[in-house]
Amino acid sequence: MCGWIAGLWSPGRVRLNCVKIALAQINPTVGDFAGNTQKILEFAARAGEQGCAVVVFPELVVCGYPPADLLEKREFVEQAAAAVREIAAWTLGAGRPAVLCGTVMPVDAPVGKQVRNVAVLLAGGKVSFVQQKMLLPFYDVFDEQRYFEPASRQMLTVVDGQPLAITICEDAWNDKAFWPRQMYAVDPVEELMRQWGTQPVELAGKQRIILNISASPFWLGKPEVREKMLAALAERHGAYVAMVNQVGGNDSLVFDGSSLVVQPDGKVVARGAAFAEDLVVFDTEAKDVAAVGAAEDEVALIWKALVMGTRDYVWKCGFKKALVGLSGGIDSALVAAIAVEALGSENVLGVGMPSEYSSLGSIEDARKLAKNLGIRFELLPIHDVFAQYQGVLKPLFEGTPFGLTEENLQSRIRGVLLMAISNKFGSLVLTTGNKSEMSTGYCTLYGDMVGALAVIGDVMKLKVYALSRYANREREVIPHATIEKAPSAELRPGQRDTDSLPPYEVLDPILEAYVERYWSAERISEEQGVDVALVRQVLQLVERSEYKRQQAAPVLKVTQKSFGMGRRFPIAVKVQV
Amino acid sequence: MCGWIAGLWSPGRVRLNCVKIALAQINPTVGDFAGNTQKILEFAARAGEQGCAVVVFPELVVCGYPPADLLEKREFVEQAAAAVREIAAWTLGAGRPAVLCGTVMPVDAPVGKQVRNVAVLLAGGKVSFVQQKMLLPFYDVFDEQRYFEPASRQMLTVVDGQPLAITICEDAWNDKAFWPRQMYAVDPVEELMRQWGTQPVELAGKQRIILNISASPFWLGKPEVREKMLAALAERHGAYVAMVNQVGGNDSLVFDGSSLVVQPDGKVVARGAAFAEDLVVFDTEAKDVAAVGAAEDEVALIWKALVMGTRDYVWKCGFKKALVGLSGGIDSALVAAIAVEALGSENVLGVGMPSEYSSLGSIEDARKLAKNLGIRFELLPIHDVFAQYQGVLKPLFEGTPFGLTEENLQSRIRGVLLMAISNKFGSLVLTTGNKSEMSTGYCTLYGDMVGALAVIGDVMKLKVYALSRYANREREVIPHATIEKAPSAELRPGQRDTDSLPPYEVLDPILEAYVERYWSAERISEEQGVDVALVRQVLQLVERSEYKRQQAAPVLKVTQKSFGMGRRFPIAVKVQV
Repeated sequence: MCGWIAGLWSPGRVRLNCVKIALAQINPTVGDFAGNTQKILEFAARAGEQGCAVVVFPELVVCGYPPADLLEKREFVEQAAAAVREIAAWTLGAGRPAVLCGTVMPVDAPVGKQVRNVAVLLAGGKVSFVQQKMLLPFYDVFDEQRYFEPASRQMLTVVDGQPLAITICEDAWNDKAFWPRQMYAVDPVEELMRQWGTQPVELAGKQRIILNISASPFWLGKPEVREKMLAALAERHGAYVAMVNQVGGNDSLVFDGSSLVVQPDGKVVARGAAFAEDLVVFDTEAKDVAAVGAAEDEVALIWKALVMGTRDYVWKCGFKKALVGLSGGIDSALVAAIAVEALGSENVLGVGMPSEYSSLGSIEDARKLAKNLGIRFELLPIHDVFAQYQGVLKPLFEGTPFGLTEENLQSRIRGVLLMAISNKFGSLVLTTGNKSEMSTGYCTLYGDMVGALAVIGDVMKLKVYALSRYANREREVIPHATIEKAPSAELRPGQRDTDSLPPYEVLDPILEAYVERYWSAERISEEQGVDVALVRQVLQLVERSEYKRQQAAPVLKVTQKSFGMGRRFPIAVKVQV
Repeated sequence: MCGWIAGLWSPGRVRLNCVKIALAQINPTVGDFAGNTQKILEFAARAGEQGCAVVVFPELVVCGYPPADLLEKREFVEQAAAAVREIAAWTLGAGRPAVLCGTVMPVDAPVGKQVRNVAVLLAGGKVSFVQQKMLLPFYDVFDEQRYFEPASRQMLTVVDGQPLAITICEDAWNDKAFWPRQMYAVDPVEELMRQWGTQPVELAGKQRIILNISASPFWLGKPEVREKMLAALAERHGAYVAMVNQVGGNDSLVFDGSSLVVQPDGKVVARGAAFAEDLVVFDTEAKDVAAVGAAEDEVALIWKALVMGTRDYVWKCGFKKALVGLSGGIDSALVAAIAVEALGSENVLGVGMPSEYSSLGSIEDARKLAKNLGIRFELLPIHDVFAQYQGVLKPLFEGTPFGLTEENLQSRIRGVLLMAISNKFGSLVLTTGNKSEMSTGYCTLYGDMVGALAVIGDVMKLKVYALSRYANREREVIPHATIEKAPSAELRPGQRDTDSLPPYEVLDPILEAYVERYWSAERISEEQGVDVALVRQVLQLVERSEYKRQQAAPVLKVTQKSFGMGRRFPIAVKVQV
């Protein structure tokens, strides 16, 4: 039931219809039209049971986001059209809500790109409205101008006498009052709000509602930005802003969901779960339509992102099991702990592969970790294989000193063993390298870099410690000894990370500034109080190891700038740092 | 000396100044501002000695193409500006030509991208004209909309009383009379030609000249398309069209140069070398300003592209030497032959790594190849290392049959050995997998996929045979036995490629249709007369091996659609073929 509420955007009080809308934040699989359609219909039915007039799904939900070059296949676009027909047919049933969802559609024009990114409103068995995305992000991990023809204009639509301003993700991200620098010359929301005022008076006076269907991947700080930006938008336009976001991991990207409803005074009145599917129902009359959860701590958010990213990658690749090489060090311990939460302890295998340079403590720490996690542990010593390789290479290597080659060799033997187990038993190897290592190249290509997914490849070493303490928040999972000992690759006697690298307290801020924010050596030196020659040495390590990163496993992205598709650097270059 | 020539674009004869222009197709290194500037000044001096008024360099030549995300670094853009100042200062010297070259410049506007892709005309010590690129390709390997703000309009410029229409690469690629489908709504060339007519009469009557500075990478068929397209442009606008193209390898991309001058009747009157630096001088009066070479055979072009791509990758990475695992098979033999032409026989090492499944013939073939190529050959048998691994894995593998795991294991042992030699002696491993293998996943991740560069990763198996015959065009380099025997990975007794795959005569056309042209299973089956179930099996192999390709070495691109940055598919998907 609805009645009178204050129209904050207008000077007086106006009569409003109640609008009850559901935001269905679901976890689609790219290309799985049957599975995605089934999930859409399930959530739509639930929204119908709760009396919603409209149920709103994320951007490109029909095919899953990001579909990448699958969009260039005609059959893919046809399969999406068939799925949309199926969903539209469903809406014919009595008492069923209209479905607003994202999909791909062909373009008829003889010029430009051949498909468009659209929101389709499905009601009464057919497509009753199509809004085409106007602002196509093309930075970091986004390539949308590669695929889509942008809309030339935006239109309001009306459902049951209520106008709706429908926008797709980036279309709501160009508010000139919010951003110091606008990325695009036009603002689709502004255009829609202008249209609002020019409607017939019985429509223009209705509560303004901006719907935003998104596939907005997580990175640290992003949920806060989204919330502030949508609040600013709500206030500026005196509108309800309801944003539904995809949830789930797709390769490197983890979508956090965290759908939001902001009322016209900028207050958040409903919030979807973070890193889980959810159905958020709100109406424009009720004051407290949903519980509003507290924002979570940064480390907890990263943890959840990595768990969901790992689980979805393994499952969507069609696997159930994973294995991790356990060195007794903190990186592999953390990855194993994440894997156990993602996949269950019965699905994770830990493999210790000591060489003659491994300390007894390390083996014990690995074994203890496995015990704490309740996972199976196997010990495969590599001494003999290592010796055999050295024998084979002796005719070539005779007289050369033990060095990086021999260190890499041990790491690669481990990679080969992990891959053999993976091949034999059909489980995925999880890579254990952290972002500090991947940045500096302090890792072995085809060695410790082996694996299907680089779980913590976007987590700097200091954050690895923070996450490990988080893993131990209830009980000791990662052995204290593992957390407390000095980091070492244990590839030669008495080796320490600090033999080759500055301490992580110095290193990580340099790397963050360079890798994530593109600061110059001079600026880093000045702002961080570190000798510029040392800074330059570190930056040269970053530049020289690009070739390794281009052959790395996909990295779960949790920062604004992670390795992978969002960071595209050439290899054969001469770059001055 | 100049005089009267027929203005083909105009009804009568008009007085024209002679315009003598040099096209300097050079090989820059990305980020090497000092080296690139030096090379620009050398070629400019040579053009000056030949009496040229203007010397034209390729797109983004100052920084090298493609700079990718280096463009997002402020220092990179500043270094480009400094290089441009240095080149401009050079033009102050007496008798020196004006320099037209491509570079990156900042954008001042408060909205949009922060840099632009420009052609700068440097004369009299300063930047006398700037043309900004308007059409920014964003497909296949091109990401230009990620970086650049497009021009909103184009302007003619005048040098010594001669108007010039300056365009940048893609700006000349949108002629609606030539392309069945236009990619962009505007045509910068059309706009410039419209302006031509509205100039003061003493300018409007001059010979029309369209300059195009390009960084247009090679793939099969591309040089022919460029030539036809530019000829159509010349005829349509009654203009000389002079296109200068970058030459050289930059990571995956190989630029063929092949600069062109087309006169207003569409006839090519000058042509730069293919796959080599060149200075092409033409004037609008002389009839035969340069020798016009005959178009080369497809296989010869691929050969040259792979040789240049390999050489530049190794050299620009700062290396001189390479090594190749020689199995006695045709793929590794071809890669070794290419490496020898690229780097010299003294810089290539061949390594034979027989297992118990390698035939004696294969070892002999490998040895003979090395002898024919004049390269050093080392034999490192892997039996014992293989046995040792099997021993270590026995507790886990006990009772399981010999299979794919053991095959991959042998391949990975070889990868580890090659990387050890690479690490020890500072030489790059060249990967030997062909495109048929990379397409179907008939290759071992971290095994035969190991290496810095996938030399023939864009060459289907049947083309590997053609290239091998080309390598033998003068004498037997690749042993006949290698070319004639049935292809085998030799990872189990009596293994043949055809145990797992259809014959390459059937396989390769299926793969080309699917990987390069995105045909459906039905269409392939129909057009190629192959059972649709078999086609589907092949396509499923392609889909299931995407994870391998994402960790592959950079592939030298020689077809319209190669693996790597130009083909972006997700891994964790459910795709129906």
